[in-house]
Amino acid sequence: MNDLHATRLDLLAGGTDARTELERAIGLSESAACRHAFTRTMFHEARQEVAAAAPASRLAGLAFTAKDLFDIAGQPTPAGSVVLSHAPAARADAVAVARLRAAGGVLTGRTNMTEFAFSGVGVNPHHGTPANVADAATPRIPGGSSSGAAISVATGAAFIGLGSDTGGSIRIPAALNGIVGFKSTARLVPADGALPLSTTLDTVCAMTRSVRDAILAHEILAARRVTAGAAALGAYRLAVVKNLFFDGIEPAVARAFDDALAALRQGGARIEEIVLPELAELPAINATGGFSAAEAYAWHRLLLERSGAGYDPRVAQRILKGAAMKAHEYIDLVNARRDWISRIETALAPFDAVLSPTVPITAPAIADVAPGAERDDAFFRINALLLRNPSVVNMLDGCAISLPCHAAGELPAGLMIWHGALHDDPVLAIALQAEKVLQAR
Amino acid sequence: MNDLHATRLDLLAGGTDARTELERAIGLSESAACRHAFTRTMFHEARQEVAAAAPASRLAGLAFTAKDLFDIAGQPTPAGSVVLSHAPAARADAVAVARLRAAGGVLTGRTNMTEFAFSGVGVNPHHGTPANVADAATPRIPGGSSSGAAISVATGAAFIGLGSDTGGSIRIPAALNGIVGFKSTARLVPADGALPLSTTLDTVCAMTRSVRDAILAHEILAARRVTAGAAALGAYRLAVVKNLFFDGIEPAVARAFDDALAALRQGGARIEEIVLPELAELPAINATGGFSAAEAYAWHRLLLERSGAGYDPRVAQRILKGAAMKAHEYIDLVNARRDWISRIETALAPFDAVLSPTVPITAPAIADVAPGAERDDAFFRINALLLRNPSVVNMLDGCAISLPCHAAGELPAGLMIWHGALHDDPVLAIALQAEKVLQAR
Repeated sequence: MNDLHATRLDLLAGGTDARTELERAIGLSESAACRHAFTRTMFHEARQEVAAAAPASRLAGLAFTAKDLFDIAGQPTPAGSVVLSHAPAARADAVAVARLRAAGGVLTGRTNMTEFAFSGVGVNPHHGTPANVADAATPRIPGGSSSGAAISVATGAAFIGLGSDTGGSIRIPAALNGIVGFKSTARLVPADGALPLSTTLDTVCAMTRSVRDAILAHEILAARRVTAGAAALGAYRLAVVKNLFFDGIEPAVARAFDDALAALRQGGARIEEIVLPELAELPAINATGGFSAAEAYAWHRLLLERSGAGYDPRVAQRILKGAAMKAHEYIDLVNARRDWISRIETALAPFDAVLSPTVPITAPAIADVAPGAERDDAFFRINALLLRNPSVVNMLDGCAISLPCHAAGELPAGLMIWHGALHDDPVLAIALQAEKVLQAR
Repeated sequence: MNDLHATRLDLLAGGTDARTELERAIGLSESAACRHAFTRTMFHEARQEVAAAAPASRLAGLAFTAKDLFDIAGQPTPAGSVVLSHAPAARADAVAVARLRAAGGVLTGRTNMTEFAFSGVGVNPHHGTPANVADAATPRIPGGSSSGAAISVATGAAFIGLGSDTGGSIRIPAALNGIVGFKSTARLVPADGALPLSTTLDTVCAMTRSVRDAILAHEILAARRVTAGAAALGAYRLAVVKNLFFDGIEPAVARAFDDALAALRQGGARIEEIVLPELAELPAINATGGFSAAEAYAWHRLLLERSGAGYDPRVAQRILKGAAMKAHEYIDLVNARRDWISRIETALAPFDAVLSPTVPITAPAIADVAPGAERDDAFFRINALLLRNPSVVNMLDGCAISLPCHAAGELPAGLMIWHGALHDDPVLAIALQAEKVLQAR
């Protein structure tokens, strides 16, 4: 996709300039493809900023968007809700926003999201649901919770879509829209100034159109350099986890994944099939409710009492499940997770990364899951299916990148390359090689 | 006190040898002063080990004891209880025990403690209560929870008393017995193989008879080198926090503390008085029960159901308070603590360390707080008074050392030198200088 859109390299090469590119980005942001993608645009400020952006900075004036849950100085932080649309203005930019701006990025707007980030579908009853970029005929879900971020990047309206990933909120929309979503190890990027869903699982991260751009975005967000050597694919030992990740998989996704594996093997990759029996423990570990419900309830409790009627009922319902959990159940969960992580890390230690389908389905039609109690069953079933694969990596405190792996003309499907905490650099290095192989098909 | 007991330097200087010293340590362990200090001795194994200890190792064969909550391969880990006295044997030494052994330390026994470490008094209804070393006439409490560890070090039966500190369990008995107790920043020493009280607040650490020995013990336990330069006291900016720490202080302790401050000032110290209004928030932050009760309840829940009648009722009662806490209350506590820490760290940033009385009282008579419901009120009142000052540092995730600061012939009182997380090295450096000044009086 990179050939369709400006990148920092294009700017540096002088093929275009930042002001021209910003106008193109604004034009795309205002196009029909970006309908409902933004909750607020900042084109006026962006035009002022691009004039001041240092051409030698890392982003050189390229446009980025920020998910509606990030603090932007002078604006309230509603996080896709209406109950906070008149909240006091943030006094400072979130750290992630500040870092992108300091690197020469120009913020063009706040992007739509699942209210309070609490679903992987991307439907928003207050601000509308942006349609997936992949199908002009049938409006399909964008995936969430970083729904608008994905659309802003996939349409070319933004170079980087800043978002967050608690159970897949970057990787699900990346997979469903055919772009790249990298969820780093959580601790590498400060979450200050981001309205939390789960303080344990939240990761501040971004979507881009290529792995190279994902590395650049991550380097800026994490204020560190990535060491991604140029070793050939054959230098890595890769695994495919056969259990859990393929349950209920759509034939089109299975085919896209198999074809991608075949291409990677053709490209020299050594890929082994393994089983992680520990994955079967997850329902029991989370039986008392899991991190997101309890931690979201702690944050939302008073707001729910005051303004509960203004919440998306599907979101309120999920948050309220956290009310009943006991402290000792939460502590058991923390301890069980630590033990589970240590066993998974041991099992994965021989491998450089794992390959999985990011999500087992392509984007369903918005009509099937649109707001309305009569579609709640379908909504929650699809939501669970979308979150299942990516959330394994959040539970692992790990890192993962989703790359497009579908054939041209098909609905997008994602290949997820992942591992445990702090394996970010090898995962990114493998993704660089895999992207090359998959694009060369 | 060091002149009465062998140290590694004595051994290195050839003034004595490790076997002779071990026999002296065993003799002291078997003396009346150590009555109830051990729950199990290992003299036979110790004699075999000392024969094998490398003279050039850091501990060169010197004796250490381990609080009854540490795993020792081949033994159950009852943690001062009787309900676990027939638990399955540990398969490996706790990391802290293994590190002391690897450094040439010879383990002579497991030391008595408050059951499951859940009080600062040191009374144990199952194994008896070791008497404070400071008063031969009136049996006084040793302080806890690392009660036997303190007695083993104060009598000279051990060079290092390995213990743990969740709210003062190293520093309280150090202060009450006139020895040195250093609670490092928790994360610096692995807690693997130590039966937990509060996974959030527990610190694995030790008592010794001098700051020099405390540094040696910490270097071994943390597997790192301390950088404690030899700057004069005047090089540091010190604070005395006037609120909270002096409430209900015994005149003898107030006098000892004031005299110590005067001596330190005489020695060049620059000491300013400050107020930390944030300390007044602690009761509200902990209003729903605090970390120890909730985390202990998570660990003990099934054991209490099965064997609750065998618990010390004072301990069971405190653990059971954790049953009612909700997950969101616990999460609020975690978040409130993080915010509180950040504000205290800001307030303390201009200072190199804070000076406080470790505990506001000298050791009360055992008779006043001995097991028995009629003394529960006195017990809980004294327990709260003993824990109040040191537990501020656990809540802060900080580090603190307690040094003896009483005049000869008086009941022991401790001077606590402390700061936030990872200020261990300056705190130890200041303690080295303060100890010199206080001993020169």
